[in-house]
Amino acid sequence: MDFNLVQDYVVIKALESGVSVAGLTRGEETKFLHSEKLERGEVLVAQFTEHVSVMKIRGHARVWTQFGEIDAESDVELHHRPLPRL
Amino acid sequence: MDFNLVQDYVVIKALESGVSVAGLTRGEETKFLHSEKLERGEVLVAQFTEHVSVMKIRGHARVWTQFGEIDAESDVELHHRPLPRL
Amino acid sequence: MDFNLVQDYVVIKALESGVSVAGLTRGEETKFLHSEKLERGEVLVAQFTEHVSVMKIRGHARVWTQFGEIDAESDVELHHRPLPRL
Amino acid sequence: MDFNLVQDYVVIKALESGVSVAGLTRGEETKFLHSEKLERGEVLVAQFTEHVSVMKIRGHARVWTQFGEIDAESDVELHHRPLPRL
Amino acid sequence: MDFNLVQDYVVIKALESGVSVAGLTRGEETKFLHSEKLERGEVLVAQFTEHVSVMKIRGHARVWTQFGEIDAESDVELHHRPLPRL
Amino acid sequence: MDFNLVQDYVVIKALESGVSVAGLTRGEETKFLHSEKLERGEVLVAQFTEHVSVMKIRGHARVWTQFGEIDAESDVELHHRPLPRL
Amino acid sequence: MDFNLVQDYVVIKALESGVSVAGLTRGEETKFLHSEKLERGEVLVAQFTEHVSVMKIRGHARVWTQFGEIDAESDVELHHRPLPRL
Amino acid sequence: MDFNLVQDYVVIKALESGVSVAGLTRGEETKFLHSEKLERGEVLVAQFTEHVSVMKIRGHARVWTQFGEIDAESDVELHHRPLPRL
Amino acid sequence: MDFNLVQDYVVIKALESGVSVAGLTRGEETKFLHSEKLERGEVLVAQFTEHVSVMKIRGHARVWTQFGEIDAESDVELHHRPLPRL
Amino acid sequence: MDFNLVQDYVVIKALESGVSVAGLTRGEETKFLHSEKLERGEVLVAQFTEHVSVMKIRGHARVWTQFGEIDAESDVELHHRPLPRL
Amino acid sequence: MDFNLVQDYVVIKALESGVSVAGLTRGEETKFLHSEKLERGEVLVAQFTEHVSVMKIRGHARVWTQFGEIDAESDVELHHRPLPRL
Repeated sequence: MDFNLVQDYVVIKALESGVSVAGLTRGEETKFLHSEKLERGEVLVAQFTEHVSVMKIRGHARVWTQFGEIDAESDVELHHRPLPRL
Repeated sequence: MDFNLVQDYVVIKALESGVSVAGLTRGEETKFLHSEKLERGEVLVAQFTEHVSVMKIRGHARVWTQFGEIDAESDVELHHRPLPRL
Repeated sequence: MDFNLVQDYVVIKALESGVSVAGLTRGEETKFLHSEKLERGEVLVAQFTEHVSVMKIRGHARVWTQFGEIDAESDVELHHRPLPRL
Repeated sequence: MDFNLVQDYVVIKALESGVSVAGLTRGEETKFLHSEKLERGEVLVAQFTEHVSVMKIRGHARVWTQFGEIDAESDVELHHRPLPRL
Repeated sequence: MDFNLVQDYVVIKALESGVSVAGLTRGEETKFLHSEKLERGEVLVAQFTEHVSVMKIRGHARVWTQFGEIDAESDVELHHRPLPRL
Repeated sequence: MDFNLVQDYVVIKALESGVSVAGLTRGEETKFLHSEKLERGEVLVAQFTEHVSVMKIRGHARVWTQFGEIDAESDVELHHRPLPRL
Repeated sequence: MDFNLVQDYVVIKALESGVSVAGLTRGEETKFLHSEKLERGEVLVAQFTEHVSVMKIRGHARVWTQFGEIDAESDVELHHRPLPRL
Repeated sequence: MDFNLVQDYVVIKALESGVSVAGLTRGEETKFLHSEKLERGEVLVAQFTEHVSVMKIRGHARVWTQFGEIDAESDVELHHRPLPRL
Repeated sequence: MDFNLVQDYVVIKALESGVSVAGLTRGEETKFLHSEKLERGEVLVAQFTEHVSVMKIRGHARVWTQFGEIDAESDVELHHRPLPRL
Repeated sequence: MDFNLVQDYVVIKALESGVSVAGLTRGEETKFLHSEKLERGEVLVAQFTEHVSVMKIRGHARVWTQFGEIDAESDVELHHRPLPRL
Repeated sequence: MDFNLVQDYVVIKALESGVSVAGLTRGEETKFLHSEKLERGEVLVAQFTEHVSVMKIRGHARVWTQFGEIDAESDVELHHRPLPRL
């Protein structure tokens, strides 16, 4: 299978330790392929690939995409403060 | 079948727990392929793929597309408040 | 037949229950392939595909395309109020 | 024959019942291939295809193209009111 | 011969009945292939094709192209009023 | 020889009867292939083709290109009035 | 040799009779291929081709390119007036 | 495997010594391929490649991407000052 | 060797007689291929080609490129006046 | 291996003598391929290549990329003055 | 090896005599291929090629790139005046 085109990338910055960025598979089955853990302050620059067509962000993190900045939020936060920046 | 081009992606953020993002198949038959559940605050960055050409969002969620932000709404909300942001 | 290019997509949000988004076939014959029903508040993000080159929207719904937002309207509405937003 | 590129699409909204959107063939002969009838308020999102290179809109309808919004008009209207929005 | 690329399209709206949109051939010879008649108020959305590289518009009509709106005029008009909008 | 790409087009509107739009050949020799006569008020939308790489406009006409509007002028005009719009 | 891509075009309008637009060859040797004479007021829309990669404009003419309008000037003019519009 | 397209690049400037820019592999397994250490003041201009689809930045550094400037932060900083520039 | 893509072009106008536009070869050796002499007032529209990847302009001339207008200057000028327009 | 696409380039100007621009390899191993030394005032215009996917700039220099101007700094500077222009 | 794409070009104008524009090779080894000398006032329009991926400018010259104008400076200048235009 050819898959030689430049994929889009997104940027994720962890705003707490333990943020997970999970990659889900592109094929006929949609399952978890890899989950990258981020410590607070780390930055991940991640492309879609031949194998990953979905990314799921859990925990308090900022996500930069072509649509702007979007904040993922953790449960702890949600119980103690309202949803910010929506 | 070749399918090696960069697909568009959309971003979905769950505004309540239990939001579902269902992928419908691209082929001659249009049927459900996968349904991803999101907890409140989680963010999904999802491309169209060789297998998925339609996404159906159910529950209270914000969807970012090339046309801007669009809110999907759950039944509960709809019975207790008017349609927001349309 | 090769059909490996990125197709445009549109977004449809149902403003009443029972909205139908019908896909018509691309080939020498133009016939119905699939009709997706939407409940009030649900959002559909739908690409054109190898098999679908026409979408027909019936019922009260908002449609986002490259030309902006366009409202489809149901009969009930049309009998009780003037055409909005044209 | 290969025909695997993304075609442009236009959007048509019927402003009266009985609007027809006719597709004319692309080949050496230019003849009618299909005519889709629209009820008042329905929206059609239609690509050019391997088989259709011309669309002819009859009846009172609004057409969205890359050049903006253009109104097709029916005979009845034309006898009772001047041409709008030109 | 391959001819599988997306061609430009133009839009023509008849401002009188009897407008003709003639397609001239692309090959070594340049001759008429087809002439489509339009009634007043009808709208034609027409691509260039493998067979048509020139369109000739006769009669009172508005033509939308990438360069803006251009009015074709009939003889009757020209004898009774000056050239508009040039 | 493959020649399957979308060519640019220009638009010509005759401002007098008898305007000629001549196509010159693309090959090793540059000679006249076809000359289309336009009556006053007619509009021609013309692509470059596999066979035509040069267009020569004679007589009083307006030409729309990617560089804007350019007026071709006839001898009669030139003897009686100064060059307009340069 | 394949040479099937859309070439850029320029537009030349003669501001005096006898303007020449010469095409020089693209190959290992750079020599004259064709010289087109223009009468005052005529307009030439000319693409680069498989055979022509250089155009040389002599005489009083206006040239439209992607960089704007540039005036070529004849000797007669240059002896009687300073270089305009630089 | 072909992989001959121009990949995006990002720029990283170390704001302290010991910043690491780790490349994670593109394939079915996501593992560390290389980690480049930067001294304070050094600048790295890094493309995605056939082998690297994810970059992880640890330590105090500024990252330039298509979404603007994003600061990665080290633990030391985070214990002594709040998260800047979010 | 295939070399079938549309090359960029530049425009040169001689501001004195005797301006030379020299083409240097693209291959492993970089040597002069052709030198075109321009009289004052003449305009040259010149593409890069399969054989020419460098152009060297000597004498007083104006050069239009994608970066704007740049003046080449002759020795005579330089001895009698300072470098203009930098 | 095909690698025939136009790569991005960056520009580096040495603000002190002894600036080094090191190219790191693109392949499965990431190692130094070449290091170019620059004297103060020299300018380097450097593309990514089939062999180089990372550039590392050491010493006091200005780097122009698609994200703007970024200054690399040498140790000497950093001990005597704060980080400028961040 | 195919190398048939349109490369970027830069423009260099010598502000003193003796400016050198050196081309460095694209391959596994990075070495000098050609060095072009410029007299004061001469202009060079130079593409990257199959063989040249780096250009090094020495001496007092102005360089136009996609990032704007950048001045290379000679030793003589640097000893007598501060670095301008940074």
